[in-house]
Amino acid sequence: MSFKTDIEIAREAKKKPIMEIGANLGIPSEHLLPYGHDKAKVSQEFINSLDTREDGKLILVTAINPTPAGEGKTTTTVGLGDGLNKIGKNAVICIREASLGPNFGMKGGAAGGGYAQVVPMEEMNLHFTGDFHAITSAHNLLSAMIDNHIYWGNALEIDARRVVWRRVMDMNDRALRDTVTSLGGVANGFPRQTGFDITVASEVMAILCLAKDLEDLQSRLGDIVVAYTRERTPIYCRDIKADGAMTVLLKDAMQPNLVQTLENNPAFVHGGPFANIAHGCNSVIATRTALKLGDYVVTEAGFGADLGAEKFMNIKCRKAGIAPSAVVLVATVRAMKMNGGVAKADLGAENVEAVQKGCPNLGRHIANIKSFGVPVVVGINHFHSDTEAEIAAVQAYVAEQGAEAIVCKHWAHGSAGTEELAKKVVEMADSGSANFAPLYPDDMPLFEKVETIAKRIYHADAVIADKSVRAQLKTWEEQGYGHFPICMAKTQYSFSTDPNLRGAPTGHSVPVREVRLSAGAGFIVVICGEIMTMPGLPRTPAAENIRIGDAGHVEGLF
Amino acid sequence: MSFKTDIEIAREAKKKPIMEIGANLGIPSEHLLPYGHDKAKVSQEFINSLDTREDGKLILVTAINPTPAGEGKTTTTVGLGDGLNKIGKNAVICIREASLGPNFGMKGGAAGGGYAQVVPMEEMNLHFTGDFHAITSAHNLLSAMIDNHIYWGNALEIDARRVVWRRVMDMNDRALRDTVTSLGGVANGFPRQTGFDITVASEVMAILCLAKDLEDLQSRLGDIVVAYTRERTPIYCRDIKADGAMTVLLKDAMQPNLVQTLENNPAFVHGGPFANIAHGCNSVIATRTALKLGDYVVTEAGFGADLGAEKFMNIKCRKAGIAPSAVVLVATVRAMKMNGGVAKADLGAENVEAVQKGCPNLGRHIANIKSFGVPVVVGINHFHSDTEAEIAAVQAYVAEQGAEAIVCKHWAHGSAGTEELAKKVVEMADSGSANFAPLYPDDMPLFEKVETIAKRIYHADAVIADKSVRAQLKTWEEQGYGHFPICMAKTQYSFSTDPNLRGAPTGHSVPVREVRLSAGAGFIVVICGEIMTMPGLPRTPAAENIRIGDAGHVEGLF
Repeated sequence: MSFKTDIEIAREAKKKPIMEIGANLGIPSEHLLPYGHDKAKVSQEFINSLDTREDGKLILVTAINPTPAGEGKTTTTVGLGDGLNKIGKNAVICIREASLGPNFGMKGGAAGGGYAQVVPMEEMNLHFTGDFHAITSAHNLLSAMIDNHIYWGNALEIDARRVVWRRVMDMNDRALRDTVTSLGGVANGFPRQTGFDITVASEVMAILCLAKDLEDLQSRLGDIVVAYTRERTPIYCRDIKADGAMTVLLKDAMQPNLVQTLENNPAFVHGGPFANIAHGCNSVIATRTALKLGDYVVTEAGFGADLGAEKFMNIKCRKAGIAPSAVVLVATVRAMKMNGGVAKADLGAENVEAVQKGCPNLGRHIANIKSFGVPVVVGINHFHSDTEAEIAAVQAYVAEQGAEAIVCKHWAHGSAGTEELAKKVVEMADSGSANFAPLYPDDMPLFEKVETIAKRIYHADAVIADKSVRAQLKTWEEQGYGHFPICMAKTQYSFSTDPNLRGAPTGHSVPVREVRLSAGAGFIVVICGEIMTMPGLPRTPAAENIRIGDAGHVEGLF
Repeated sequence: MSFKTDIEIAREAKKKPIMEIGANLGIPSEHLLPYGHDKAKVSQEFINSLDTREDGKLILVTAINPTPAGEGKTTTTVGLGDGLNKIGKNAVICIREASLGPNFGMKGGAAGGGYAQVVPMEEMNLHFTGDFHAITSAHNLLSAMIDNHIYWGNALEIDARRVVWRRVMDMNDRALRDTVTSLGGVANGFPRQTGFDITVASEVMAILCLAKDLEDLQSRLGDIVVAYTRERTPIYCRDIKADGAMTVLLKDAMQPNLVQTLENNPAFVHGGPFANIAHGCNSVIATRTALKLGDYVVTEAGFGADLGAEKFMNIKCRKAGIAPSAVVLVATVRAMKMNGGVAKADLGAENVEAVQKGCPNLGRHIANIKSFGVPVVVGINHFHSDTEAEIAAVQAYVAEQGAEAIVCKHWAHGSAGTEELAKKVVEMADSGSANFAPLYPDDMPLFEKVETIAKRIYHADAVIADKSVRAQLKTWEEQGYGHFPICMAKTQYSFSTDPNLRGAPTGHSVPVREVRLSAGAGFIVVICGEIMTMPGLPRTPAAENIRIGDAGHVEGLF
């Protein structure tokens, strides 16, 4: 049996003009800024005009801990959005933009797959509407202004050893991780050691994704801590006077991007913060706009539910004043098998026992989501190799947990493959059974917040942290940051901090290596283990095979 | 008397939808990719369809050596384009895009001024259609792939000390001029000293502006020399296998951008290479497209005519197979006075004698342009402080040189201020008197080409160069680069290499400090004096005052 590739399917898409997609949502053409014929930004003026409308219902798509078998979270998000439209509902999709850098390494696209894709796929994996370039520019303008301030006399008395603001590039470039700048003599400034992160790891990205509007954006940019004096007094972006110009650079990037699915349903694709040192969700402005325009809004969060859904609930929903009406937890039979100990090469053979052995990972995520007061349904993202007995095993297990598992075949059949899931989601969301509450209150001490996540979500026994870490958290509480939520940065492959510990581990502890303040984004990053903020390219980068083919199409990108 | 600022005038512009501007030029809407409602890119397919059409006439706008008094080259280009349309001609304007970095330092916009502007001005001075970001990405992908190649075993045996390909950023950031990268241990590669240039100084920018189409672009990118082995064997971009992916990143950036003047006449704004280490003209693809669509195409070249017009003729026209039918040489009474020794503070007072004393700079440019076989007219860009006697002095001097000087008041009156100039330009261009020839043949030895420019354009006695420089040129001739034209990099303020030597100096010599090969762009850069490829920010950067004002407009950018 031979399948069409994602890009072949995408090229066959019968796209409608983006103005028509917008018109169907009630957006007048003068409020849609086109980027080509198939992408558009929605004007702030139009967004402001929606203020008094009622919100639609928010559906979060999350997943079990990822395995190399793949779960298909974005694919399911797109498929469910199409399925809801198929059963006659007015549904809008919200997903993240793709980072340019990884596409030249080995990562595939970020626009779904099979018959559940968002288009134009090529452009989404290249420059798209330039949002990430704008973020890169805004971030690096601040960097340049900091060094320029020091160069011209350093009136703010910045300790050059304590500049915490690095530079960014939307590229996988390990050579930039650790650098010395300002070499070459007097005219080039004072040499100091610093480095670059990839753009999606920029605090500017996290801020853009959490800001309500341009005013809030500028205020949050101003709050960024860029350096400290010798006496450890924080120096803010506002002190460098970069916040205004950064906001100007970001004014278009703040507007949500509208595109469409293969089935011509509307999708907002906007923002893409890292899911470890940031919160991993598309922008608040896109989600809120979608909620005003759609009766149902389907969105996703990065990594597995232990990281993605937890941050979605405790950071994004809390900050944006929104709440999910239902959650879809994506699982695959193959991933259950891998959790049950089967090697990737052997995934093709039926193994009901392994499926059953792997299910506890799924079970814990179900329980965790319920603890936020939100109803959950499991979406089994169907693969051709899945057998009926294996699927039945997952369904039986999920039923024991007091939930339902529904097979979805959107990859092969588009919306026709998600009708049952869509009906279930509508039933749950409309039932009013959701009673969302974040896991911890704003005024809980910071370290207790970390313990709460570790114990209630990861099911760990304890959090281990040096005195210096605890002291740092205390200092931030004294400085007025105690109400911030926690942004956990740990491996996505396990509930624990050990990526090899699959399933539903208990008895483990969570060691905190470092804590960082994201004062503009408004959260405390708690780092457990190695976190890479600038990826490298592999031995044979995908870039070597990316080219414009004879037919004028882009080849090798996916 | 109070004047409106450029930005105030630009905001009052009655812009037409860009689709209408395109339709007036005969571009069908499906071949115009909109970026918002007032910018669009022209499709390659449409450009290809123009191949058999006859070319319009090309008019170059150049200037005397710049002084702090300002000459208004872009303003005159825009004003003349409007003037030609005003007298009933079908005229198209071609100018360069603005670099983002300098806007946050102290430079003003690059879209003309007064009532001779191209709009949307704000966006032209911010991200515009993202071309420069695409160039930055393509350039830095190659940089990352070079270090990645070395990291994974260095099969090409690159000498890490002889990597000549740096990184770029579209920012004024002196801290990045000279850096050490790959610090931090084994995982980050081999530490080496390198640095960043501003994006407009990238060879990728020069290549994009000289390439005929995507195929030519990829071929030129492949030709870039990125490093040498210990044995001095060149390593090309093609060896690193980055040329295909770079072309994919640049595919949209290669398409010319269409915007409009305040008077709704069409303008292509595309590309912007440095005018010192590169050739300083807008893209060949924009100029050639404009020539197919307009009966008259008005374009400009960077700096004064000794650098800008010389490179326009010897590099751009030669490479693109185009030829100017007439040249407008922009001068101002104020600049003549400064050339005649008047200080900037005293420019307001009438001083005919100083004007006369400053005129020889203008005279030499007139003679130089005639030496290319092209008719020239002087455009006196009028300032309020100019007196009738001063203007008459310039006109009398120009008449003695066998040319005409016409007063232009486009800054204050738009096209109504350039009708006379437009009529003269049409007369010259239609007369068929142009008999363009480059200054030197392709097969002249490289050092002789440098001497030809120095003697015939700069009126220097000699070129001074170390044996090593001459040997390097010889090596390049042996390697097959002998047919390349020369790209001179010297001060724009004087015919000589001494910026303080105003007027029309003789008896000077031209010392060559360094020569560089731009194998992809296809020229040899000859550096005479200090050339800055990464600017810094001033003590009080313009960025400190750039913000979104209460009315939602961008403030402080211009």
